[in-house]
Amino acid sequence: MHPNDPALKSFLDVAEQSDFPIQNLPFGIFSTASQPQARTGVAIGDWVLDLSVLESRGLIKPAAHAVFGDATLNTFISLGRQVWRETREAISQLLRHDNPVLRDDSVLRSQALIAQSEVQMHLPIKVGGYTDFYSSKEHATNVGSMFRDPANALLPNWLHLPVGYNGRASSVIVSGVDVHRPMGQVKPPSAEQPLFAACAKLDFELETAFIVGADTVLGEAVTVSDAESLMFGMVLLNDWSARDIQQWEYVPLGPFNAKTFATSISPWIVTMEALEPFRVQGPVQEPKPLPYLQQSGAHSFDISLEVDLQPESAKKPTTICKTNYRAMYWSMAQQLAHHTVSGCNVGVGDVMASGTISGSTPDSYGSLLELSWNGQRPLTLDDGTTQRSFLENGDRVTMRGWCQGAGYRIGFGEVSARVLPALSGRR
Amino acid sequence: MHPNDPALKSFLDVAEQSDFPIQNLPFGIFSTASQPQARTGVAIGDWVLDLSVLESRGLIKPAAHAVFGDATLNTFISLGRQVWRETREAISQLLRHDNPVLRDDSVLRSQALIAQSEVQMHLPIKVGGYTDFYSSKEHATNVGSMFRDPANALLPNWLHLPVGYNGRASSVIVSGVDVHRPMGQVKPPSAEQPLFAACAKLDFELETAFIVGADTVLGEAVTVSDAESLMFGMVLLNDWSARDIQQWEYVPLGPFNAKTFATSISPWIVTMEALEPFRVQGPVQEPKPLPYLQQSGAHSFDISLEVDLQPESAKKPTTICKTNYRAMYWSMAQQLAHHTVSGCNVGVGDVMASGTISGSTPDSYGSLLELSWNGQRPLTLDDGTTQRSFLENGDRVTMRGWCQGAGYRIGFGEVSARVLPALSGRR
Repeated sequence: MHPNDPALKSFLDVAEQSDFPIQNLPFGIFSTASQPQARTGVAIGDWVLDLSVLESRGLIKPAAHAVFGDATLNTFISLGRQVWRETREAISQLLRHDNPVLRDDSVLRSQALIAQSEVQMHLPIKVGGYTDFYSSKEHATNVGSMFRDPANALLPNWLHLPVGYNGRASSVIVSGVDVHRPMGQVKPPSAEQPLFAACAKLDFELETAFIVGADTVLGEAVTVSDAESLMFGMVLLNDWSARDIQQWEYVPLGPFNAKTFATSISPWIVTMEALEPFRVQGPVQEPKPLPYLQQSGAHSFDISLEVDLQPESAKKPTTICKTNYRAMYWSMAQQLAHHTVSGCNVGVGDVMASGTISGSTPDSYGSLLELSWNGQRPLTLDDGTTQRSFLENGDRVTMRGWCQGAGYRIGFGEVSARVLPALSGRR
Repeated sequence: MHPNDPALKSFLDVAEQSDFPIQNLPFGIFSTASQPQARTGVAIGDWVLDLSVLESRGLIKPAAHAVFGDATLNTFISLGRQVWRETREAISQLLRHDNPVLRDDSVLRSQALIAQSEVQMHLPIKVGGYTDFYSSKEHATNVGSMFRDPANALLPNWLHLPVGYNGRASSVIVSGVDVHRPMGQVKPPSAEQPLFAACAKLDFELETAFIVGADTVLGEAVTVSDAESLMFGMVLLNDWSARDIQQWEYVPLGPFNAKTFATSISPWIVTMEALEPFRVQGPVQEPKPLPYLQQSGAHSFDISLEVDLQPESAKKPTTICKTNYRAMYWSMAQQLAHHTVSGCNVGVGDVMASGTISGSTPDSYGSLLELSWNGQRPLTLDDGTTQRSFLENGDRVTMRGWCQGAGYRIGFGEVSARVLPALSGRR
């Protein structure tokens, strides 16, 4: 049976609504209180399977040397696509209901299977480069309408190339690390001069990202048809954004301090192979892109996405956005082909983010900027009274994503963090 | 005697015009044909002093473990400022005319001193992040005049903050690596639709960069007064730019493919300590910046800079730009304070570039865009006939920089590369 076969069952109980059935097997880096050294695991149901234990027992062997004791996935990823596949296949075999090797070895099970509630997750990769695209037509249209001209919301290049920019790799952090409200320069419309202040328009951006799985050579472009073979997997990404800082600083060279203070990703990398059954056609591209960006077939993915917002005082979160990745105008393959067409090299562990994922309805917008229309239409949360235009201190933002199969889902888990007050003592 | 003392002499003959007297001692990474493993050296006159040899003999010992056999300087740099100083002092002692340890040990000299003509230089650091600022008022004014409005050439934020953006770290390369003309999307004014073509407006940008010498913590800002203590040294930097690609792609998120194909740096990192005698006041800043950017005293550096252009068929290069770093409006300390004021962390090996360094006279502009005024005033080279608006295939661009002392100079060497044709076979 192929590891993606919906009929596959594990000997471990996995709820139908679990993000992590045997068909998923996402890779992450974790540690435990009793064994604080970060190492590689795979999520299965409510458990983490410790690959470093399986590797030390010789049950999986991706390379001549041990790789799953590493504190990042980079070395494993650099072994290449064939190894990713074989490793996933081997793990799938070990977790099957009819395979006694792990199932019936209680000592091995006690060593290799750890409850997810007992692990701490870490950033799964050493991020070499971080690029953020801007590939939702709805998002770009919304932003253009708000800040420029609704009649000409999309800038002239937008339909011709996947607009993107370099982000700051050093501040990519893992879900669970809370985020301080940034300080920065802002210039409110009423002010004569800019001020130094805590950001007053703190926002999230709902995104996904693919993790690059191979090093390319400077000067060599990746074709759009080869691009997917260079992707290891995907994560959820929250591109925290300080809208007031951004508006003042971003001309003419793009966002900088408004984005560099933090970018959160989910800890489990869902492999492209696990996502394979959920391929769908992206939107029709009109005008037709230039040949280096042309592709046919199904190059988007049917990934349901939600954002929850929970104020510190609230008993429950409010789901403020429901959308889907599938509507993204530019595919990941097109993004990578465009990124490298100049000769720019990419490498293992690079994070390539989608840009804010917004749907066509107001409840499917992937940022508070759009959901509250820059504060003109504050959101009312589920308690009926609390309103939000932008994020307040203590707010928790949680993003979830999953592909819905028949009786199972390939889930991403979540990327979640709280907003902490701006650090005092800064000048 | 302090290592910067102008009266210091080495037992090695160093010409007065050499970039590398005993007062300089820049760090780099090199290899030789007979010993191809990259390792750390210091430039002295026409020689490279192999620090891995000195370290293995116990003559210098920056750390408990060997660091100078590494292929990058990152580990050495991460040892901190006190170790940089002590190591430079120890090297200075070993090279002094009156110290017999190296001078009189012919075997050690034959092992530790290698002619610069026989070494290959490598990228001196693993680049964690690359940030490019835009801190020359003259350059920003020139660009604003050409592409926007001469009467309002500077955008409103420019005088209030050191505008910068994230560059692409993976394509930072060392001097000597030639650069292929990039392919990309362009939209000439006459065209209805964008085209895919080789860049027709390839340019250089004369810049310097400082190399970050410490890891900071996410969420913690570096004050402008602390910022200089976090800098290891400086290099020359050529921010290759595809002007036609840039003009089409850059709205609204800034330059991307127009810059990501290559950024060249000089191989020798001149330490901030060696530059210390050449501190000068920067320009008066009016309006006064916000408190987090305010500083008094001498925070610029008197660094003479030149750019040579040599077509493939030319017998000699033409010097097409002579300028000086000292006129830069925003200091490096202000750049780093601004970069981190949002809480963004920086790290050892980060490259923080100045932005194009242009003076106030037309022969001091740091890019062909400005020197030829976007092609309206092509440059005539020294042969009297060859003209250039932008770079042609086969052109060699060489940048040099030095601080002039009394009877010696603290030089950067050069950053030099040729323009190669666009790679065929790309789609």
